[in-house]
Amino acid sequence: MRNIKLEIEYDGTNFCGWQIQTNVRTVQEELEKALTQLTREKIRVYCAGRTDSGVHALGQIVNFKTESRLPEYVFQVGLNGILSKDIRVINAEEAEDDFNSRFSAKSRTYRYDIITRPVAVGREYAWYFKKKLNMAKMQDASSLIIGSHDFKSFCQAGADVNHYLCDVFEAAWLEIDDKLIFNITANRFLHNMVRILVGTFVKIGTGSINVDDMKHILKAKNRIKAGPTAPPHGLFLVKVFYE
Amino acid sequence: MRNIKLEIEYDGTNFCGWQIQTNVRTVQEELEKALTQLTREKIRVYCAGRTDSGVHALGQIVNFKTESRLPEYVFQVGLNGILSKDIRVINAEEAEDDFNSRFSAKSRTYRYDIITRPVAVGREYAWYFKKKLNMAKMQDASSLIIGSHDFKSFCQAGADVNHYLCDVFEAAWLEIDDKLIFNITANRFLHNMVRILVGTFVKIGTGSINVDDMKHILKAKNRIKAGPTAPPHGLFLVKVFYE
Repeated sequence: MRNIKLEIEYDGTNFCGWQIQTNVRTVQEELEKALTQLTREKIRVYCAGRTDSGVHALGQIVNFKTESRLPEYVFQVGLNGILSKDIRVINAEEAEDDFNSRFSAKSRTYRYDIITRPVAVGREYAWYFKKKLNMAKMQDASSLIIGSHDFKSFCQAGADVNHYLCDVFEAAWLEIDDKLIFNITANRFLHNMVRILVGTFVKIGTGSINVDDMKHILKAKNRIKAGPTAPPHGLFLVKVFYE
Repeated sequence: MRNIKLEIEYDGTNFCGWQIQTNVRTVQEELEKALTQLTREKIRVYCAGRTDSGVHALGQIVNFKTESRLPEYVFQVGLNGILSKDIRVINAEEAEDDFNSRFSAKSRTYRYDIITRPVAVGREYAWYFKKKLNMAKMQDASSLIIGSHDFKSFCQAGADVNHYLCDVFEAAWLEIDDKLIFNITANRFLHNMVRILVGTFVKIGTGSINVDDMKHILKAKNRIKAGPTAPPHGLFLVKVFYE
């Protein structure tokens, strides 16, 4: 069996997320159907980071096993010929037998875009936030999450995980024109972690809580202490890193 | 009567352009309907640059006459409350009586975005062009159109205009990551002018015609001599300049 690794991009707007569910459109199902059409095999795909409904991916990594002898590039151009325009295959290559898009990943980078003015062009790719945000405070708060921390307060309640420890390598806000962009790189992410972090940073940015509250929220290990979950359409899975 | 000036942004993807036509969705019609709802008057709006189906606007300027005494900011927030999400009012202010969004304009800037790789996120905001393009040649060709020229070769045949003379103040290509961006500022634009220019630059960029052919095409004053019309979704009306 060959193990094929794909780098894919998708616009999450019209998907109910990555994972197959009955009666709704998902990235996983469209990709598996397209692969079955291309290879004439039943294919199961695995991804590095399952994205929720409305969340986008610029560099999602996927792998699957196949008996097909199709050349690598055919998995790119062939799939792009079959798939709808909101999923694109950026690259396709054969991987080592033991490569697993999820478990071989060392870290992932997500990005969250806030737009500070009403916008029509690109409105599905950023969260429009009306109130004035204090970037210096949000920046200070983001530096407090760098390192190894228990992120239970920033995990959707009821998540099925063994532990909540994440190593955050990078967490920073950038301001570019009318956009506030949050970049975060960590070894792993909990369910809704980036969106709850952004919802909390925004509470700090508006002054409704203080920068130092970030420390108390981390310590509390309680989802209720953190801010609201920011909407999905500002979030992008940007890149997955392997050895 | 007051004369109100609006700056608006729209995503052209789901509009059949600016101008009212029966049985299709247009920006003009949606704006006039929203204004009638807001002011309880029959309102007619005028724009600086009529855009075609699929073309976007980041800084379209519109004006209309009204008896309404609503404060200026209400024309912004009120309209944004009524309009669908693909049109946003960026600014609203009272203008001089004789201000006309189209005839008072001194120049306009358009932008055309080409993306050089398959893309899902933002696919409605750039033209995906597969073949390799020589940017240096496209840059050289764009400098040849700066100045005062007869652009009949770059005007859709059958356009209802008195003359084809346009003063081009700026015309240049930029390369940013996977995007090739063409910016052009001129006193006026003919129908499909930017899209036919881009279609011609692309023929130069692939090497199917030479940089110097740009001069011959301008001289020919014949639409057939220029390249094809580039697709609408890469084009943006960026800004309109007044005194």
